[in-house]
Amino acid sequence: MALKRKDLLGIDYLERSEIEEIIATAESFKEVSTRDIKKVPALRGRTIVNLFFEPSTRTRTSFELAAKRLSADIINISSSTSSVVKGETLLDTARNIEAMNSDMIIVRHSMSGAPMILARALKSSVINAGDGSHEHPSQALLDLFTIKERLGRIEGLNIAIIGDIAHSRVARSNILCLNKMGAKVRICGPATLIPAEIEKMGVQVYFRPEDAIDGADVIMMLRIQMERQKSGLFPGIREYSRFFGLNQERVRLAKEGVIIMHPGPINRGVEISPEVADGPYSVILDQVTNGVAVRMAIIYLLTEGRGSL
Amino acid sequence: MALKRKDLLGIDYLERSEIEEIIATAESFKEVSTRDIKKVPALRGRTIVNLFFEPSTRTRTSFELAAKRLSADIINISSSTSSVVKGETLLDTARNIEAMNSDMIIVRHSMSGAPMILARALKSSVINAGDGSHEHPSQALLDLFTIKERLGRIEGLNIAIIGDIAHSRVARSNILCLNKMGAKVRICGPATLIPAEIEKMGVQVYFRPEDAIDGADVIMMLRIQMERQKSGLFPGIREYSRFFGLNQERVRLAKEGVIIMHPGPINRGVEISPEVADGPYSVILDQVTNGVAVRMAIIYLLTEGRGSL
Amino acid sequence: MALKRKDLLGIDYLERSEIEEIIATAESFKEVSTRDIKKVPALRGRTIVNLFFEPSTRTRTSFELAAKRLSADIINISSSTSSVVKGETLLDTARNIEAMNSDMIIVRHSMSGAPMILARALKSSVINAGDGSHEHPSQALLDLFTIKERLGRIEGLNIAIIGDIAHSRVARSNILCLNKMGAKVRICGPATLIPAEIEKMGVQVYFRPEDAIDGADVIMMLRIQMERQKSGLFPGIREYSRFFGLNQERVRLAKEGVIIMHPGPINRGVEISPEVADGPYSVILDQVTNGVAVRMAIIYLLTEGRGSL
Repeated sequence: MALKRKDLLGIDYLERSEIEEIIATAESFKEVSTRDIKKVPALRGRTIVNLFFEPSTRTRTSFELAAKRLSADIINISSSTSSVVKGETLLDTARNIEAMNSDMIIVRHSMSGAPMILARALKSSVINAGDGSHEHPSQALLDLFTIKERLGRIEGLNIAIIGDIAHSRVARSNILCLNKMGAKVRICGPATLIPAEIEKMGVQVYFRPEDAIDGADVIMMLRIQMERQKSGLFPGIREYSRFFGLNQERVRLAKEGVIIMHPGPINRGVEISPEVADGPYSVILDQVTNGVAVRMAIIYLLTEGRGSL
Repeated sequence: MALKRKDLLGIDYLERSEIEEIIATAESFKEVSTRDIKKVPALRGRTIVNLFFEPSTRTRTSFELAAKRLSADIINISSSTSSVVKGETLLDTARNIEAMNSDMIIVRHSMSGAPMILARALKSSVINAGDGSHEHPSQALLDLFTIKERLGRIEGLNIAIIGDIAHSRVARSNILCLNKMGAKVRICGPATLIPAEIEKMGVQVYFRPEDAIDGADVIMMLRIQMERQKSGLFPGIREYSRFFGLNQERVRLAKEGVIIMHPGPINRGVEISPEVADGPYSVILDQVTNGVAVRMAIIYLLTEGRGSL
Repeated sequence: MALKRKDLLGIDYLERSEIEEIIATAESFKEVSTRDIKKVPALRGRTIVNLFFEPSTRTRTSFELAAKRLSADIINISSSTSSVVKGETLLDTARNIEAMNSDMIIVRHSMSGAPMILARALKSSVINAGDGSHEHPSQALLDLFTIKERLGRIEGLNIAIIGDIAHSRVARSNILCLNKMGAKVRICGPATLIPAEIEKMGVQVYFRPEDAIDGADVIMMLRIQMERQKSGLFPGIREYSRFFGLNQERVRLAKEGVIIMHPGPINRGVEISPEVADGPYSVILDQVTNGVAVRMAIIYLLTEGRGSL
């Protein structure tokens, strides 16, 4: 089992068979995290670097645990402690890390395309852990894993993604991924937060959450960035919550057995009500659990694909 | 050997036999840290998380070393890098960590009671590494260990705790612990820093350090928080030092063979003079050494108590 | 193989035979980092602490990887998270770390001499990872390693060090190291950045880079600290670049087969042009690679020299 590519930059570049291979591998890794000894020796002595230019507990920790459970050595570098403050370019920072014989660099950056720049310049594998408003492929893959685990299939499902579509790398990666796997994706949000010509990505656009949710198998809520409000892109937190927030009443419009997803961290009472977040349909914490397994699979398959050094 | 509880939230909740078991286990672990290979395989592959919402080198590092010397994997999360800045609730942060199959969360928080909230909601073990002005149980246990190591017993000892009693979780945990173990606790500090009705905790109150120290077997100095001065709770550093600081003259009032303790970090020349801090009666660095052994014992016993997953 | 000293504080204190031993050991460790399993069990269970009072990705990460590839446990403590903010003295911070049974403390500090203070007070080994404008011995050793690797010898080479000599611990350590090993060192920079009486260190002083470079086997560029400009020590970035920056035209004045070095992080277009930094003579990334091997050697030899505890 191996991916025949050096990097994971986005769902856009993956073939369906590769996605299936990641999911299948993650299924076998999931059990490792339930043991007393949550560790396999697969990647002992490999050097993996978490290079995070944006803060993120969840994703950084998930990759760190994934690496440790594969027995790799992992080093954390965050922008606040990095030479970037000294005026070094992103590429020089990355080349320096690679010169220390890193096998893999996991990068998060506010600039769309930053991981591609690194991937092209480096021999190390590069994993995109979120770049600007472009892609967040490991999130889409763990979402896919979670849907498949709960509903048994992806093909033909109706999946509603609701929120700030325009700025969301999570939405973009999910749309690409779910489309490749044969789901029908509906998107919904305030008109100011829906990108022009988004239909070309193969989605149906809704402006009322009730319409998007009607008959949906999956509801995926996006985190609202409070700072967007200052830019005048939506009127206010209370209005947003009233018109687009997911509450129990709206959940009832969905198909029976619907699952509710959120990439976290959640704003309770804003895009999702506490009753829904903590309710029986919510799989939000399953997403977090599956995130470690999916990231183990990604790290493992990219490493195996490169063969011995 | 095991504790029959999931969490260590405070000395208040421990029985005397449990305290004795922790101390006995720490005695056997202390030797590990003196070896070349400072490691036992006991908790290999377990996932422990240091979740610190207040900065602390000493306690964070001590727990980190304790975990590593037990061969566990430990992840550090501090509030500055955490999703908490994104408005996530404490409980959501902790639930997310647990969803990644953590076995244990070690939490420090400025809010009294925060670890209890987590313990109730989580299946992971929770260790209180200091919560507001409530408790700091691992500190009291390492202090107890150090007293017993040096003086051979606890029962019947006269122990003077001097400083800002009102705001000190160290004082609170020590009073509870020493009382349970049969010591006689005296407390002393400026009247503004002595809580009302503290006598109900079974201590004798003194307002002059000379009286508190007279005949004491142990003197435990507390760190003075400079920011309290701004609140007008004591007149000034120099006055505090003059009236309450521990100097050689005051030490002479204690019993022969007295030991001097301080939870650190010390303010040299404020609550303790350099001659006393570095002098022959000081066991301040022994406290630090013993801290690792006691924390190894706590982590080990809580894990064993839970049995296999 | 072992060093017969407890600490590595500066090149100034090393004998030539010790330098040769570090280089030889690094040569044998370099291969470890090219394996799939980049790890030797040499220092399993040892406790090493990175104590950084100045931010530094490069040096901190290099020491962290060196320690991990020797299988030691390493703990990172940076000033932002440390008790130093609480007013603790440097020595108290270090004594506390040592009390947790650390074997080795790697310290970076803005104050020249800080590592010496620690070395004298502690039983742990201390490695100076850069102190003020005093020394940065591991950098000079990795530079030496790189020159020897590329040019086959040190004896008799002409080596030009160009930049802010006055404030550079890298320059100081390199001058000391290269002199001991028999090279001829030329220094060059704006007159305001050349220390008075520097000739007494056994170097030739040049004020025009063309003269310093003429016939040089090695050109070592120093990083210019932008903040020096504010102090009026040089007129401006553009002037500095024009008069002292290394470009292809100036490189041509050097000996055939010249190598170009820089301790990083580089300011592209200031002290070095991108064409030169990325060009065929540049060994800047080799320096980074060799840094891990040299630091593995330093950590290993100091530990072995101390024998069993």
